[in-house]
Amino acid sequence: MNHQCYGCNTCKSADKPLEEFIRSLPMETSHHRVDTQKTKCGFGLQGVCCRLCANGPCRITPKSPRGICGADADTIVTRNFLRSVASGSGCYIHIVENTARNLRDTARARGELKGIASLNKLADLFGITDPDPYKKAEIVADAVLADLYKPEYERAELVEKIAYAPRTDCWKELGIMPGGAKSEVFKGVVKCSTNLNSDPVDMLTDCLKLGISTGIYGLTLTNLLNDVLLGQPELRMAPVGLRVIDPDYINIMITGHQHTIFVDLQDKLISPEAVKKAQAAGAKGFKLVGCTCVGQDLQLRGSHYTEIFDGHAGNNYTSEAILATGAIDAVLSEFNCTLPGIEPICEELKIKQICLDDVAKKANAELLSFDFQNREQLSELIIDKIISSYQERRGSVPLNLLENHGNDHTLTGVSEGSLKAFLGGSWKPLIDLIVSGDIKGIAGVVGCSNLTAGGHDVLTVELTKELISRDIIVLTAGCSSGGIENCGLMTPEAAKFAGPKLRAVCEKLGIPPVLNFGPCLAIGRLEIVATEIAAELGVDLPQLPLVLSAAQWLEEQALADGCFGLALGLPLHLGLPPFVTGSPLTVKVLTEDMKSLTGGQVIINPDARESADILEQIILDRRSGLNI
Amino acid sequence: MNHQCYGCNTCKSADKPLEEFIRSLPMETSHHRVDTQKTKCGFGLQGVCCRLCANGPCRITPKSPRGICGADADTIVTRNFLRSVASGSGCYIHIVENTARNLRDTARARGELKGIASLNKLADLFGITDPDPYKKAEIVADAVLADLYKPEYERAELVEKIAYAPRTDCWKELGIMPGGAKSEVFKGVVKCSTNLNSDPVDMLTDCLKLGISTGIYGLTLTNLLNDVLLGQPELRMAPVGLRVIDPDYINIMITGHQHTIFVDLQDKLISPEAVKKAQAAGAKGFKLVGCTCVGQDLQLRGSHYTEIFDGHAGNNYTSEAILATGAIDAVLSEFNCTLPGIEPICEELKIKQICLDDVAKKANAELLSFDFQNREQLSELIIDKIISSYQERRGSVPLNLLENHGNDHTLTGVSEGSLKAFLGGSWKPLIDLIVSGDIKGIAGVVGCSNLTAGGHDVLTVELTKELISRDIIVLTAGCSSGGIENCGLMTPEAAKFAGPKLRAVCEKLGIPPVLNFGPCLAIGRLEIVATEIAAELGVDLPQLPLVLSAAQWLEEQALADGCFGLALGLPLHLGLPPFVTGSPLTVKVLTEDMKSLTGGQVIINPDARESADILEQIILDRRSGLNI
Repeated sequence: MNHQCYGCNTCKSADKPLEEFIRSLPMETSHHRVDTQKTKCGFGLQGVCCRLCANGPCRITPKSPRGICGADADTIVTRNFLRSVASGSGCYIHIVENTARNLRDTARARGELKGIASLNKLADLFGITDPDPYKKAEIVADAVLADLYKPEYERAELVEKIAYAPRTDCWKELGIMPGGAKSEVFKGVVKCSTNLNSDPVDMLTDCLKLGISTGIYGLTLTNLLNDVLLGQPELRMAPVGLRVIDPDYINIMITGHQHTIFVDLQDKLISPEAVKKAQAAGAKGFKLVGCTCVGQDLQLRGSHYTEIFDGHAGNNYTSEAILATGAIDAVLSEFNCTLPGIEPICEELKIKQICLDDVAKKANAELLSFDFQNREQLSELIIDKIISSYQERRGSVPLNLLENHGNDHTLTGVSEGSLKAFLGGSWKPLIDLIVSGDIKGIAGVVGCSNLTAGGHDVLTVELTKELISRDIIVLTAGCSSGGIENCGLMTPEAAKFAGPKLRAVCEKLGIPPVLNFGPCLAIGRLEIVATEIAAELGVDLPQLPLVLSAAQWLEEQALADGCFGLALGLPLHLGLPPFVTGSPLTVKVLTEDMKSLTGGQVIINPDARESADILEQIILDRRSGLNI
Repeated sequence: MNHQCYGCNTCKSADKPLEEFIRSLPMETSHHRVDTQKTKCGFGLQGVCCRLCANGPCRITPKSPRGICGADADTIVTRNFLRSVASGSGCYIHIVENTARNLRDTARARGELKGIASLNKLADLFGITDPDPYKKAEIVADAVLADLYKPEYERAELVEKIAYAPRTDCWKELGIMPGGAKSEVFKGVVKCSTNLNSDPVDMLTDCLKLGISTGIYGLTLTNLLNDVLLGQPELRMAPVGLRVIDPDYINIMITGHQHTIFVDLQDKLISPEAVKKAQAAGAKGFKLVGCTCVGQDLQLRGSHYTEIFDGHAGNNYTSEAILATGAIDAVLSEFNCTLPGIEPICEELKIKQICLDDVAKKANAELLSFDFQNREQLSELIIDKIISSYQERRGSVPLNLLENHGNDHTLTGVSEGSLKAFLGGSWKPLIDLIVSGDIKGIAGVVGCSNLTAGGHDVLTVELTKELISRDIIVLTAGCSSGGIENCGLMTPEAAKFAGPKLRAVCEKLGIPPVLNFGPCLAIGRLEIVATEIAAELGVDLPQLPLVLSAAQWLEEQALADGCFGLALGLPLHLGLPPFVTGSPLTVKVLTEDMKSLTGGQVIINPDARESADILEQIILDRRSGLNI
């Protein structure tokens, strides 16, 4: 490289080649800004700062235990928390709404339905008997949309059809069966507005309701609807990391969560006309480079998209490095987690940014809102704009590739369906391994990647290693997957990091000790796995030797996911606390009282080994409870 | 009083007897906490603190111009602002939703419709021709509910039926015609979640959309629906202030914004059975004591409720003083602005708190959610609980009345309908007075009461005096009304504070120079007045010699109201800025660019005289523009 690095003061990363690459970059990234933003506000961290009115901001201290209005720490903390959970839930509900709309519109247009088995599964769950798959798909989509738009005071219908009966029994007893998911978000936001609710327990109860609608609609149903439109995941080995970027192609980095928005474009990009255009511009064709969750989702279904999809390059906090290679010609984003920090980098490297959904409009990007009716013209337009970008920038912007980053044989395509099929169509082999102790238990290491729990993916990867070394198999979903895969833990040879029993299992089956379910949406798939295993055992979810960790949770969405985990009755580890520690009551409810309500609990610990010890002990306790 | 005061360090109030009363109280109030919360966070005040993710909180400084994710001050500020506006809009939409549900349910039950003229007006606007008033009311309510529940991507139908055509033309040109109001709130909240939208202009555009749906549904329509169920306002003189509390009665302080929730209870409280129960307990009967906006709404329609309603005692920051009189036996709250600070006071003075809507559940209150079907049983239950409270507390809790507070002849009942009727059924007399210069212009002094713009209602009252001294007639709506009325500016003799021309008009007509439209919801009535005047003149709203001031705005709802004002194209004065000053771009859009977009503008000035000078100049300019 003939340039100077921007500054060496970057945060650590579990991914050492990436860390080194970022340190050497001639531009600022989020990894650099961890240092400039290292002075944190204690009030904000504890959640005891309130900005809801013009009398504020008010902050709680021992000498000022109430805001001007009289709100105390418990009220202020839970108002802030509820607002975050409601917003995070809203994000997922937005995703499932668009997914259902795209399925409905595709069905009406008699477009391709790649996952008929998934469609039939949904139709069975919903009690739909129409034999025509298009009609069936339309009714499925309409049922989801109708539920989403119910008022908060009318119970959503699909929750009982999707969720595990012992759970819905518990939820009914607690009075937390949600109404219409959009109205639940709406109500949650209203509830924590100025001088409205001041009851911390009432607000925390709403967080559980929001968790349930997030989980059932935003997570579980989004996956199943996606499967119908995009094809069911199939196990395969795939390359991951910055190595997947091939500079001979016109490369499009995709970020977001709404995979169904890309259906038409994916097809068009490999059409002879488009390839011809690309070739005329000097490239071999087009490639989609996966980033964040939509990249994980594409990787998950990669067997259907081998021609257009290069592979998953990395998670949210790898996105700047992906762009910095100079080989990306455009960013197509349709939701988070698209960092605002990519904007100056795109500017500098002349990378065209196109946003397909205005909720995620980046400041200096062009907005071309996806519209099913105009999808074909939109695809053409996008392709032309990307070709122009390629022509304008290639040659004038230097390449800075990291060719050996990542690995070429990460096991991908793991889903509740493909895993069960791999096990012979039944969970019994897995259950047997758990009963025998060859697998001590299951840990879902899920959620985001952040930069402040030891650095980029540091806690996530360390915890994962600790867990597998204890013979606990790890299932991942979310940006955590992107970090873990780039560190090699999803290759079969990672079995060597596992404890002797798990290692033997992995080596026998030729699988890694960490199974990648893909995007954060796939937390919904983990729930299906857990539910099916529980059903086979005839127990409720909190009895399973199953724990969750969102070790490096980042976003408001993660908080909504977390509330789903708590509603499911699962132990949920977090490396960093949400901004609630200023309320002893909230901390007690989340970490203690929740056990007797739903069976769930929050465990906050930033240390990988200590956290693994705690989670292992819970698994051992659950095993004892099951007499295994 | 035989007790010691809690502390003399209270904030100022425009209402000097109240200020002295609060200073003498033996308990802490919000007026005391202004001092303990006087150290404000500069980052929070400027809006440059972000708490959207676990990497944060991040704060923008010259040395750290971006958060870890890369968001700059403009992005952070507008995300925070959009979230506040969306939440505030949500509050009003919640109110109109419940109001429409109550109208629908009442119509179905063939209950009393007190405002048939209002019903017919709505039916005309909506194009409903059914002759049966119940059927008509049901269709009206259903039309509102259907619109509220539309997706964001389907245009709401009633906007064009309610709003002034030149305005909707402008809004269409700007692309800010809203979709379904609940979905607009939902989308606004999603848009400003972690790593989603980073485009400040896009987010500010959404604020205008939210302003429109807030104004049309939450404000204008709520009033009209309320009029149908509760009766149209009629002009009358009424007592205001703490003097309205009669200790011989069982007194119920009401706070909130959802007047239709009280319909059955209001009737039951004056039933012979209830009065007999009250008498058996030692009281003369029951009285509702008005507080916050629902009190203003009841005062507005007071001619229909003379038996049960004692009068409006004060606004949000008078509520603690009202309770401190010792003569309040219960608080019935159904929305904001019910301060959390009343909770310890109610505890101490054994005042029963009952919440009728869980969005506004107070921590130590009993929740008895309003449910139309069970309204009668609920009313009975509430009455019995309040009687118990009366019996338990009276005698044991000392009275501390402020008998001469306020005045006994405030003009109330002012609405677009009653004012026009007073003028002889036409706006022409008012227009003539404006054209002749006897009235220089109109200022809407609206919105909340806060404690930090000089103290409780200080700026509001001073500005009002400045405006009327310049022959500008003032129309009020919101908690500002409560402060201004308690300071006597709504009595006919307040004409003496007006400039010579306005004074002559007032004295001739026997009216005060400040006309009280009641609750903040009545900002919608001001919009109707303005629209009807503009239509009569054949001009658009921004051409009128009309300005708005939310001098002491407090809540997120006020920000949504303010965005409505901007969408209407009106100048909007604020004594304190919203938390946006950290973004030069946002400040410029709101204070400058908006003029060429909608015609509106934000003016921020904490000084009453300077603010009045600015507003007067705008009025003079508008007069010139109209050649008057």
